[in-house]
Amino acid sequence: MSFDFTPFFRDDLPPAANPWGGFPEFNFVGGHNDADGVPVEALTEALAKAMQRDGKQLATYGMNSGAQGYLPLRTCIAQILEARAGMATDPANILITTGSLQGLDLVNGALLSPGDTVIVEDVSYGGALSRLRRCGVDYKSVKVDAGGMCMDGLATVLGDLQGQGIRPKYIYTIPTVQNPSGTVMSRERRQRMLDLARQYGVPIFEDDCYADLLWEGDRPASIRSMDENGQVIYCGTFSKSIAPALRIGYVVADWPVMSRILPLKSDGGCGALEQMALAEYCPDHFAGHVDKLRQTLKGKCETMTAALAEQFGATAEFSAPVGGIFIWITLPDDVDTDRLAQVASAQGVAINPGSEWSADPDSGRHRFRLCFGHATHQVIRDGVARLAEICHGEFGVPLRGANVER
Amino acid sequence: MSFDFTPFFRDDLPPAANPWGGFPEFNFVGGHNDADGVPVEALTEALAKAMQRDGKQLATYGMNSGAQGYLPLRTCIAQILEARAGMATDPANILITTGSLQGLDLVNGALLSPGDTVIVEDVSYGGALSRLRRCGVDYKSVKVDAGGMCMDGLATVLGDLQGQGIRPKYIYTIPTVQNPSGTVMSRERRQRMLDLARQYGVPIFEDDCYADLLWEGDRPASIRSMDENGQVIYCGTFSKSIAPALRIGYVVADWPVMSRILPLKSDGGCGALEQMALAEYCPDHFAGHVDKLRQTLKGKCETMTAALAEQFGATAEFSAPVGGIFIWITLPDDVDTDRLAQVASAQGVAINPGSEWSADPDSGRHRFRLCFGHATHQVIRDGVARLAEICHGEFGVPLRGANVER
Repeated sequence: MSFDFTPFFRDDLPPAANPWGGFPEFNFVGGHNDADGVPVEALTEALAKAMQRDGKQLATYGMNSGAQGYLPLRTCIAQILEARAGMATDPANILITTGSLQGLDLVNGALLSPGDTVIVEDVSYGGALSRLRRCGVDYKSVKVDAGGMCMDGLATVLGDLQGQGIRPKYIYTIPTVQNPSGTVMSRERRQRMLDLARQYGVPIFEDDCYADLLWEGDRPASIRSMDENGQVIYCGTFSKSIAPALRIGYVVADWPVMSRILPLKSDGGCGALEQMALAEYCPDHFAGHVDKLRQTLKGKCETMTAALAEQFGATAEFSAPVGGIFIWITLPDDVDTDRLAQVASAQGVAINPGSEWSADPDSGRHRFRLCFGHATHQVIRDGVARLAEICHGEFGVPLRGANVER
Repeated sequence: MSFDFTPFFRDDLPPAANPWGGFPEFNFVGGHNDADGVPVEALTEALAKAMQRDGKQLATYGMNSGAQGYLPLRTCIAQILEARAGMATDPANILITTGSLQGLDLVNGALLSPGDTVIVEDVSYGGALSRLRRCGVDYKSVKVDAGGMCMDGLATVLGDLQGQGIRPKYIYTIPTVQNPSGTVMSRERRQRMLDLARQYGVPIFEDDCYADLLWEGDRPASIRSMDENGQVIYCGTFSKSIAPALRIGYVVADWPVMSRILPLKSDGGCGALEQMALAEYCPDHFAGHVDKLRQTLKGKCETMTAALAEQFGATAEFSAPVGGIFIWITLPDDVDTDRLAQVASAQGVAINPGSEWSADPDSGRHRFRLCFGHATHQVIRDGVARLAEICHGEFGVPLRGANVER
């Protein structure tokens, strides 16, 4: 007879997991990347070279670099951030993490207690919002418009909270290729955010995971690069620019913060092979790889926007992204995307319902997010067509698809 | 002026980290392994092969295997456990973790709330004890003798707790090459532990991290292999058998437990390159590699026991290990190894004071642990000599070293 573990589990656990059932046929969720774009050969060669030089260091925890991660990779990240995000960074202020997800957990672990308050964008990364809820934290949201988080709105929220005697633990922002809106915050807004953060004495938590994937032009200077007093905690990742399965992200913070986050990383470090491979690969290949990747993604994005226009017509409203791997779409008010996602899932189409990407779930109930990084052009076209059909079957819209009455 | 983060940190954070200062000259702490024993070339080749086949899967989270980790590696772990630990295992009941450390955190996260009680061995892994304290958990300890955890002692503790109406959340044991005592539990004791666990309805958490490193003979059957009702949660690792910097460990548990642990692994998975490299490397190389490694470690252990005998004589009591990477040493009662560790550290010799490896820190105050896996034979000899000198300088013992009066 099977032992009953039920009385042994904590009361506050998330629901039980289901066994893995494979990826859906039309997979438009998750930060997956273009499969052909993974630089398999160059990464393999880079690792072989690094192994020849440093392979014996695998025998030690931390590879002679301490708990913050392989020093050659931290040096390389510092160079990338300085060159691309205008952000002079000491490798001593970088912590290598298991993707940016662990970065979020570590920063939250250092700063947040149940009952605390943070400020978020009104549409934001679902994984960040769900983590805040799991921490028992209250969040106040600030409207995102075509230029990213609205600074007048931020000023109002900061003022209101101050009036209530509440000092928020941080302002969480994704300034470049905001998730899910795809917006990019101007330099002026970034400066204003910093000014407000200083005025109210509130830290900023800058999530810059998509910044390398702008179709055109240079990455904007990060907010942290404009900050001179260590008020901004920054996180980034190689998941979107190289490959998510590498699980290599990073947190950048001045030492007074880093020294408190570091003891919470209790897993003995991140994978050495990825750290070695990236440290060897990036100096020669990163910029060129990213240039190629963003063209690939731009092409997939165009296929998806064309498919949306063709299949959904005026029923689907969205701004064409200027970078990234996702599109944020608004449907008519009476379409419930929670239900749409559920029905679509049963038919092999995976989408992110807007409620999960919205600070106020109700306000996102007729919105959804589609990711286009991994799907092939054909999968994008077929999947959007199937989704339109499903949506029509459930909600009666869109009425026409591909110029044909449904 | 630097922003003051002090009021933003949680009250219950561990002390701030110090910047990394490099490894000490004589490093006898930590689970580091033999540097020349790392199969650098074979791992590199294995990864190249796996990359050629599966490299494009790096583009997806989970590499088409879901949150539990790369299926070929889970299959390979199942084969190793069946062949070596007598433990038939379904890959669906394996979760790949960032070393066994993350395994401890996940199991604790699923089961332990502040105020809970667990049962531990009276000397045990410092990282497990410190985690329990950090969880706010009370632990009761059971004496370890030359045959591992004493079952009469366990029966007494279980009975006492039952009398107090307390059902412990688990019994934590390291049955094979117990850390730090180096003892190996007999099959009879394993069976008795299972019987007691059943009788009292208490789960067992079996930590089998060192089991591949017995100098002679086969690994004993794991406790989990003898359990038929899913009462044992098991963890293992490649850190000791291959290399710690790979950060690949695993938890094995029946699905009712696995399904509750899995949602707590919120970091998007472990490093793909290590998982691919190990899955490719192990089927052909694991057994041969481990055979070679344990001979290497046995040789280093002999060097260390000889150095201890020469430098400490009768002052240092210990049982010669039958496997593993550490020796557990008892000094005269009036030697305070917390102080010894502190003074030695300043002189380049790192040791684990016994207080950190003891459920009751006071009872371990005259004991310490020395690791011999990473140090060269010369470093072992010189380091033990220096440690004896430091010990003599502080505590007046040992009186003689290398047949010379001090």
